[in-house]
Amino acid sequence: MKKQLIQARTLSGFRDILPIDSIAKEDMISKLKSAFRSFGFVPIETPHLEYSEILVGKGSDEIQKEMYRFFDHGNRDIALRFDHTIPLARFVVEHKDKLAFPFKRYVVGNVFRGERAQAGRFREFTQCDFDFIGTKSILADTEIIQLVSSSLNSLGITDFTIFINHRKILNGLAEHLGVSEKLEDILRIVDKIGKIGAEQVRNLLGNELGLSEKICEEILDFINLKQDKGEPDFFEKIDKYKGYNPRMKEGIEELKEIYSLLSEISDESHYIIDFSIARGLAYYTGVVFETILNEIPQIGSVSSGGRYDNLTKSFSEEQYPGVGGSIGLDRLIVALEQLGKVHSKGTTANVLLTNMGDSLIKPALILAKGLREAGISIEIYPEAGKLGKQFKYADKKGHKFVVVLGEDEVKNENFTLKNMQTGEQITIKNLENLLFELKKI
Amino acid sequence: MKKQLIQARTLSGFRDILPIDSIAKEDMISKLKSAFRSFGFVPIETPHLEYSEILVGKGSDEIQKEMYRFFDHGNRDIALRFDHTIPLARFVVEHKDKLAFPFKRYVVGNVFRGERAQAGRFREFTQCDFDFIGTKSILADTEIIQLVSSSLNSLGITDFTIFINHRKILNGLAEHLGVSEKLEDILRIVDKIGKIGAEQVRNLLGNELGLSEKICEEILDFINLKQDKGEPDFFEKIDKYKGYNPRMKEGIEELKEIYSLLSEISDESHYIIDFSIARGLAYYTGVVFETILNEIPQIGSVSSGGRYDNLTKSFSEEQYPGVGGSIGLDRLIVALEQLGKVHSKGTTANVLLTNMGDSLIKPALILAKGLREAGISIEIYPEAGKLGKQFKYADKKGHKFVVVLGEDEVKNENFTLKNMQTGEQITIKNLENLLFELKKI
Repeated sequence: MKKQLIQARTLSGFRDILPIDSIAKEDMISKLKSAFRSFGFVPIETPHLEYSEILVGKGSDEIQKEMYRFFDHGNRDIALRFDHTIPLARFVVEHKDKLAFPFKRYVVGNVFRGERAQAGRFREFTQCDFDFIGTKSILADTEIIQLVSSSLNSLGITDFTIFINHRKILNGLAEHLGVSEKLEDILRIVDKIGKIGAEQVRNLLGNELGLSEKICEEILDFINLKQDKGEPDFFEKIDKYKGYNPRMKEGIEELKEIYSLLSEISDESHYIIDFSIARGLAYYTGVVFETILNEIPQIGSVSSGGRYDNLTKSFSEEQYPGVGGSIGLDRLIVALEQLGKVHSKGTTANVLLTNMGDSLIKPALILAKGLREAGISIEIYPEAGKLGKQFKYADKKGHKFVVVLGEDEVKNENFTLKNMQTGEQITIKNLENLLFELKKI
Repeated sequence: MKKQLIQARTLSGFRDILPIDSIAKEDMISKLKSAFRSFGFVPIETPHLEYSEILVGKGSDEIQKEMYRFFDHGNRDIALRFDHTIPLARFVVEHKDKLAFPFKRYVVGNVFRGERAQAGRFREFTQCDFDFIGTKSILADTEIIQLVSSSLNSLGITDFTIFINHRKILNGLAEHLGVSEKLEDILRIVDKIGKIGAEQVRNLLGNELGLSEKICEEILDFINLKQDKGEPDFFEKIDKYKGYNPRMKEGIEELKEIYSLLSEISDESHYIIDFSIARGLAYYTGVVFETILNEIPQIGSVSSGGRYDNLTKSFSEEQYPGVGGSIGLDRLIVALEQLGKVHSKGTTANVLLTNMGDSLIKPALILAKGLREAGISIEIYPEAGKLGKQFKYADKKGHKFVVVLGEDEVKNENFTLKNMQTGEQITIKNLENLLFELKKI
């Protein structure tokens, strides 16, 4: 009887990452971590699973519905994390006595959301977060946004814009218009403006929230305010709104200070004040931002974040004010691929060493060991076989050089080196000369 | 009314990793990846979640019971991965047309097992796996074991022993004794010898499997065979067993070949042939190994693996023979900590820059940016405050240097540099000199 085979497939909405993409992703993560570390952010890890009560009620309604939640062997109600921010709040309260505050952490890890499957969206994806906990200093807000710039720069990305707003400004507006009790819904709807456009936002504000035409008009006019690239007198233009109320005044002044510091330390054309930036999540209380790659804006924000001063409130009476940002690595990789900026190969070793038969395995192992000790990454073709097949393998995977070690070479104590790009083939006399050639790579 | 607080706690059997350990872990992972890459292994990623049918029936009975298995939003029967080997088998079959074979992959990621909670054992832990798929070449077996040595060396670990056996030898023994049909149970019991001792193994073989006293005796005698460190004539001593049957002969000859190659390329005292090494998992078919740190053997194997030639058989008619190893990173870290070999700090930045007031934020940001561009990792203390408090913070986190930038320093265009280890404090005239001092770190 023939055995029934199980179909080898990934779960709907999930995916494998193949070598060529995985090598590119690892290299990007390594660069991002270096950027985070250069500012003194330290890594932490939290589990992928949490008690559901830790996660429930945080994040948007949509995210709540999408949570992977179930009962474990001990009948505990548990769930997979859907972001890194809520676990951070739990972490800070749980370990407060062991941490040095202000506390700056980064994390690179996967989060899970059971979104409706659609092209380019996955249910498991990698987020890189960096957060600054335990300070209300404007320096922290500034450094988080500066770090977004530095992170993108570290990946070779220079053509981007960070759109910045301040929740106190939006709060001040709602207060001025007498619609503060509907603030969360207003923010949720305004947050969609990039996807659905201004007209649809106006319709939703009117139809869904029952706001008057006049109020809708005023909201739309206000969130339409946006700095021109590098426009120096934008803050003079909006100075008049400070009179609305103290919230508005504070928001504008903080935003001005952050913008001024950012302009001082980096190219100010990267930053644009934009009053339509709302961020959907309820927990933001201060500066908020989103980041667009100018060449491919339609892909959406590749790095977002903001200040959240009450995030730990469900776990502690003490307040741990914070500000943080997040880089959506998967989305960023998709963008870079579309822009042709991912230059990856299918191999981590520049050199392939041939395998010309069992009697040559020993000298091959010894040669490979010597080259590795000199810092050369080298792979030995594992099976004795025709040279043509081995060259083809090297070509497919992207090895730059093939070192041929056959009977003749061993006897004459030399090596044949083939450059896979030029096709050029040379004979090299000893290990030192081989090393010299390979080090040129 | 006072709001009910949610207790900030991790799930039973799970844990957070705090900065000092997380920094150490990241540095170790980075070194391991370099070792894997130097042999031409390439990274891949598979999802944390799989269809349950992919995972069910593989791994030991114990692991099966410990699986985190549940139904998702679409009522799919899914589970968290409990190792990296089964997902690899699924991956290879699913993507066979896109991979270059022989295929060498590595992965660093977390796996989940709902084990009974006990000290030092966690339900989520990090495994680093490296596998060689699509070849039966003895070179692959040799390189996997060589890579265990190289990986440990890359972490500064030199005092270890890799105990090696071959499944064909154990199969040959069972065949010789006429107990082949009980092979899996025999292996499962023999695998426990390190934990429960030889006497208990003998009892279990007799009582649980109903083997005769004579057979138990022969099994015990045989698995007692173990090479002395570097013993050259061990293979002469066991030569007589080749006559048992072809299985035994093949096993001994392959093992001898692998041992001979390993001795040629590395310190042979790292390798000991030990017939009691069984590995619990049913899927092994050839060489098997375990690795003990000589200074702390009681912690168990820190790296194990072996050859599995039929792993993909439930997914495909085609055979993808493979051999691989796995490093239990969490266990390794615990061991190194106990040996006092983890030298980590609470910071990723060697330098802390003081914050002496809001008017000094701008020059601090500019200085920090300049130093970062010169390759110095530097953190700015985020809140203006007393110098003493900032020194204390630097001390707690392990910053080596504090750069003081006060009104005087800005006015006189100089810096005060404090060495936190010696307490020495010097005044430095310009940025170039400061860089010179900090580069000495």
